[in-house]
Amino acid sequence: MSNIAIVGATGAVGQEFLKILAERNFPINELRLLATKRSAGKEISWQGQNLEVQETTHESFKGIDIALFAGGSGSTEYAHSAVKSGAVVIDNSSAFRLDPEVPLVVPEVNPEDVLWHKGIIANPNCSTIIMAVALKPIYDLAGIRRVVVSTYQAVSGAGREGIEELETQVKAWSRGEELTANVFPYQIAFNLIPRIDVFQDGDYTKEEWKMVLETQKIFHAPSMAITATTVRVPVFRSHSESINVETERLVSVAEIREALGKAAGVIVDDDPSNDRYPMPWLSSDKDEVYVGRIRKDFSIVQGFNLWVAGDQIRKGAATNAVQIAELLL
Amino acid sequence: MSNIAIVGATGAVGQEFLKILAERNFPINELRLLATKRSAGKEISWQGQNLEVQETTHESFKGIDIALFAGGSGSTEYAHSAVKSGAVVIDNSSAFRLDPEVPLVVPEVNPEDVLWHKGIIANPNCSTIIMAVALKPIYDLAGIRRVVVSTYQAVSGAGREGIEELETQVKAWSRGEELTANVFPYQIAFNLIPRIDVFQDGDYTKEEWKMVLETQKIFHAPSMAITATTVRVPVFRSHSESINVETERLVSVAEIREALGKAAGVIVDDDPSNDRYPMPWLSSDKDEVYVGRIRKDFSIVQGFNLWVAGDQIRKGAATNAVQIAELLL
Repeated sequence: MSNIAIVGATGAVGQEFLKILAERNFPINELRLLATKRSAGKEISWQGQNLEVQETTHESFKGIDIALFAGGSGSTEYAHSAVKSGAVVIDNSSAFRLDPEVPLVVPEVNPEDVLWHKGIIANPNCSTIIMAVALKPIYDLAGIRRVVVSTYQAVSGAGREGIEELETQVKAWSRGEELTANVFPYQIAFNLIPRIDVFQDGDYTKEEWKMVLETQKIFHAPSMAITATTVRVPVFRSHSESINVETERLVSVAEIREALGKAAGVIVDDDPSNDRYPMPWLSSDKDEVYVGRIRKDFSIVQGFNLWVAGDQIRKGAATNAVQIAELLL
Repeated sequence: MSNIAIVGATGAVGQEFLKILAERNFPINELRLLATKRSAGKEISWQGQNLEVQETTHESFKGIDIALFAGGSGSTEYAHSAVKSGAVVIDNSSAFRLDPEVPLVVPEVNPEDVLWHKGIIANPNCSTIIMAVALKPIYDLAGIRRVVVSTYQAVSGAGREGIEELETQVKAWSRGEELTANVFPYQIAFNLIPRIDVFQDGDYTKEEWKMVLETQKIFHAPSMAITATTVRVPVFRSHSESINVETERLVSVAEIREALGKAAGVIVDDDPSNDRYPMPWLSSDKDEVYVGRIRKDFSIVQGFNLWVAGDQIRKGAATNAVQIAELLL
């Protein structure tokens, strides 16, 4: 039985941590809910208990075994304090992901990396996790030379505020009112925004670089060639991805489909004759990554196209972190 | 001064034909509006005249110089009658596009192909037109070896009914009511549907094959390697596309950007420092194809990524057809 802290307990990912810990019967002795001062004192009911949210401080982690950080600026401020108190930190922010001293783990891909942690284990970017789960069986089967990915990312990637902004804009539109944008740089209702996070080198966004560099780190494959275009779409909480893969070795579509069908964390939803394919509407609130539209890419010798959808808050964030915590036990 | 017929005058593309002919001061003697029996008798006001919609029959085309077919099943039924009556047909359906006897024309790419028509000129698929306009300057500059494209297609691609379905679903959602799907196979509000048109060879959809085969025909480049994934998104009327291009010859991003900046029909909207990039919200009701997020693809030697948006009803359909008519004059 462990003592668990959730940092950022009142946000979209924090709330999902509570649900997932309960669903998976995670063996918990004490559950400590931490958040910013603004949320301190709030009561949250969990498994028949009323838990009071406390303000996160450097002293918040005494006696804690595992601290789940939901993400955001709290990570850089308090993660080291948690480690000093003896906790293992599983961090959903981007702060430590590319640190060579910190393992970056998707349990279906590189569970062995939890073993060498020095107090912090990083949870990858949401789009990266969803792609990595779908790529892993292909990587094991045929190797991966190059990936061209275009994402269709839900507003939940911007947290509770992102979800509320889409709701507010759509309701305003339904009443014939003007739309205002606060969380996203432009209207997201009935629109697409091809910019997630800040612009960096080569006019790529940070989100696009995350998909490249984090995937290479998770697979221990620095020469896996990846190029990404990341786009926000007016969908609530599942991310979708159009993934083009060039493999190292020639395999058939049937072999790819079989490998995906046997893979942990993957549901193959691919039946054109019955109009079945992954959709964000159906993959929301699920832990698995849905893979479909699996087909040979006739434009190269060893290419395949996939269409993937996975819940951004669950497998893209909270579920993956709780799975890492389970590996630690 | 020409006599012009519009077949399918009451649909989304038909109505746009009326707007565009007026905007461009197309030299018209008589404008004849044709539609199904259901719409016959309806009055449409255009340029100060009240025009009565007539039912399309095999005798509808007497005296007509150019017949603009908005698309749908009317094309296969009446196009040959129009040609027999002496009209040139510009057809927005997919019926004749791959017919070797029929030119398939994007005026910015292959205007010379109108010269060899035998009565019918085909207007390409909407996603294909938008991609072709963006690819043309790159093709001329550096050649194109391979294209990997993922689309983000508006509901207007399913006509007026598609637009109404998204409106109806979103308004029902805003009132807390159940959503029903009639035009699209599943809910499109807050969802993505990775299947447009029917499934065909290799588990590709017809829409995906259109993007491959029509593009090769327009560019007279049967060996241009293209793979496509086409996806419906909850956006009203502009299609967007994430395009990855591998060129034949090595050129710089600056050269690509310069070529696009000088190209007919293209607006380069690409300024990361000012958060500028194409979005469907801004490219709707415009004739040009917006191109941005232009960047080197570091995963291959001669690769580039682009993000493109263009109005599906205008450049993707009606504007392109009227431009073909202008070439004929």
